[in-house]
Amino acid sequence: MKLNIAVLPGDGIGPEVTAQAVKVLKAIAMEFNHIFTFKKGLVGACAIDKTGNPLPEETIDICKKADAVLFGAIGDTKYDNDPNAKIRPEQGLLGIRQELGLYTNIRPIIAYEDLLNKSSLKVKQIKDTNILIYRELTGGIYFGKRYLSEDGNTASDTCEYNRFEIERIAHLAFKAAQSRKRKLTLVDKANVLESSRLWRRVVQDIAPQYPNVKLDYMYIDNAAMELIIRPRQFDVILTENMFGDILSEEASVIVGSIGLLASASIGDKYAMFEPIHGAYTKAANKGIANPIASILSVAMLLDHFGLYDEAALVREGVDKSLKLHITTPDLNNKYDNISTTKVGDFIEDFIQNPEETNLN
Amino acid sequence: MKLNIAVLPGDGIGPEVTAQAVKVLKAIAMEFNHIFTFKKGLVGACAIDKTGNPLPEETIDICKKADAVLFGAIGDTKYDNDPNAKIRPEQGLLGIRQELGLYTNIRPIIAYEDLLNKSSLKVKQIKDTNILIYRELTGGIYFGKRYLSEDGNTASDTCEYNRFEIERIAHLAFKAAQSRKRKLTLVDKANVLESSRLWRRVVQDIAPQYPNVKLDYMYIDNAAMELIIRPRQFDVILTENMFGDILSEEASVIVGSIGLLASASIGDKYAMFEPIHGAYTKAANKGIANPIASILSVAMLLDHFGLYDEAALVREGVDKSLKLHITTPDLNNKYDNISTTKVGDFIEDFIQNPEETNLN
Ligand SMILES: CC(C)[C@H](C(=O)O)[C@@H](O)C(=O)O
Ligand SMILES: CC(C)[C@H](C(=O)O)[C@@H](O)C(=O)O
Repeated sequence: MKLNIAVLPGDGIGPEVTAQAVKVLKAIAMEFNHIFTFKKGLVGACAIDKTGNPLPEETIDICKKADAVLFGAIGDTKYDNDPNAKIRPEQGLLGIRQELGLYTNIRPIIAYEDLLNKSSLKVKQIKDTNILIYRELTGGIYFGKRYLSEDGNTASDTCEYNRFEIERIAHLAFKAAQSRKRKLTLVDKANVLESSRLWRRVVQDIAPQYPNVKLDYMYIDNAAMELIIRPRQFDVILTENMFGDILSEEASVIVGSIGLLASASIGDKYAMFEPIHGAYTKAANKGIANPIASILSVAMLLDHFGLYDEAALVREGVDKSLKLHITTPDLNNKYDNISTTKVGDFIEDFIQNPEETNLN
Repeated sequence: MKLNIAVLPGDGIGPEVTAQAVKVLKAIAMEFNHIFTFKKGLVGACAIDKTGNPLPEETIDICKKADAVLFGAIGDTKYDNDPNAKIRPEQGLLGIRQELGLYTNIRPIIAYEDLLNKSSLKVKQIKDTNILIYRELTGGIYFGKRYLSEDGNTASDTCEYNRFEIERIAHLAFKAAQSRKRKLTLVDKANVLESSRLWRRVVQDIAPQYPNVKLDYMYIDNAAMELIIRPRQFDVILTENMFGDILSEEASVIVGSIGLLASASIGDKYAMFEPIHGAYTKAANKGIANPIASILSVAMLLDHFGLYDEAALVREGVDKSLKLHITTPDLNNKYDNISTTKVGDFIEDFIQNPEETNLN
């Protein structure tokens, strides 16, 4: 298969982890006789520094011409601490999601057997957890009207949804549930928000089309608790943009490190793959960034194009690296000098030679 | 001291737990020669059933004439599952918060030594955790403009804040931090929301007035993770209404049961005390509801009126009940028939006779 992949490393640890992901994709191409070509684009704080624009036209262009986008991370503390900044790295990420129409963000939360004891949670709590979060990604309060009064003393953000936006992701979530444990939990705040009540109504309207999926509802505050105390009750979680942001980062505690969580952002025409972690500027260029989230995003990319064997091999490589403790310091208490690159190299080696790769 | 206390038991398990709280208040009055009088009001689903209004005028009146309000819980599954209901129990709670101007909600999160192993989290994770969450309670998306289009296919909610609303609670939070570990963490989503940037700006403007308090910032998604993996890093958390709702319920996992979390809602004129748990209709009238959250709300009430010895005695009673496993099933794996009432009776006995109370 021929795939043109736009690579947007972004800021902080983004470039380091993305480099490992690209390395893995190249190894897959080689082993399976695919032709993957890569084209880099600027986004985020580095794009602001170089062009004044967190999402230059050229980057959008690169993405639109590609079959898939591989995204690193964006953000920089200098903007975080300046609430007056008008141009912000996050606009780059939000802009891409919007420009490419990536309305569905899929975040798998899987408790790896080899990492159970790395979690803050008790092993018996999390064992066998396997959740797929469907987060709406191009609507809600992220993209609603914003207002700041002239005197700067009043500000507002609006969370708006329409039936169509909810339907299209809800269908995908129901379908995902059908191929899993057949349970869909809609997370909202329907006891307070009008937009949440619309979500509930639309999802209830669609539900009869998926009679074999058990649908239930949970308020976001309650879900934030239930996710920790009874994670195994969930199969597919469907939720709006902001709640999905919160729940999915919270869910990283089940997996043991946010450095393990991958995501796919899917639209009708384009698809982007990115770790859910941020740019962690403080950790940049130290070789300590965990590339697994980015590498698992590659596995999601391969799945997306039907390259299931290839994706499976990447995941096996990841599993093996975890089993052999070839992991960055966030997860490692056995070896203390396994760098970002070393993890990437190990998985690359594994792909080239699955039978023989061991610690060297 | 003379105190008129409005009692609003509400729905589900509300009446059961509130009855224990009143029992405790009566015992305190007796032992310390106070005169506490109680007047009941209707709120929530039971108020809708009886009057068609989740917050009857009479209830508001009772509250406004009282020195403090003791609140149970509201909500009913029949409304939860009906996104079309125009009248909802939650309007009763939100209405009271607004009518009484209760803009600051204070939620203590304390890891009880005797309950460390009840948490879903590893003991070493949570030991010594002591967090005070300051949640803004009368603004934001809870009280912003709502919209539902005529065809019912578009809905929106607006999160609006102004400088004044942020300042008044921020001052209280800074002051609380001053009397504790002197750290204040503002939780927001300033990388996306205009209203969050206003929060950051206002809090930064105020900060110089509290030079001995260390101020830091955290995005809500990140905070939802950090709360679980590094809870001891927090002292006072300040946040807007919706984020506070989510974080504080999530934080219950640290404490081991949401049945333990109390809260105080404070305004310039009125004050209300309530467990943070909901009505749990399914658990109602079974004698299994944990009354501790409601009883600890009583301790917060007593503190509020400067009755510190009284409050301390209530807390000692709670501690002792936990130590001796006089707890409802959510926490008990030693005895299996300790009812809501029995827990209340035990703490009442303790107050009457602190030296001698033991399991009987
Ligand atoms: C960086 C930020 C704008 C982004 C979001 O909130 O969506 C991030 O937290 C994520 O989850 O991808
Ligand atoms: C019942 C509901 C409206 C309420 C809220 O969201 O504020 C509750 O969850 C709480 O935290 O007190």
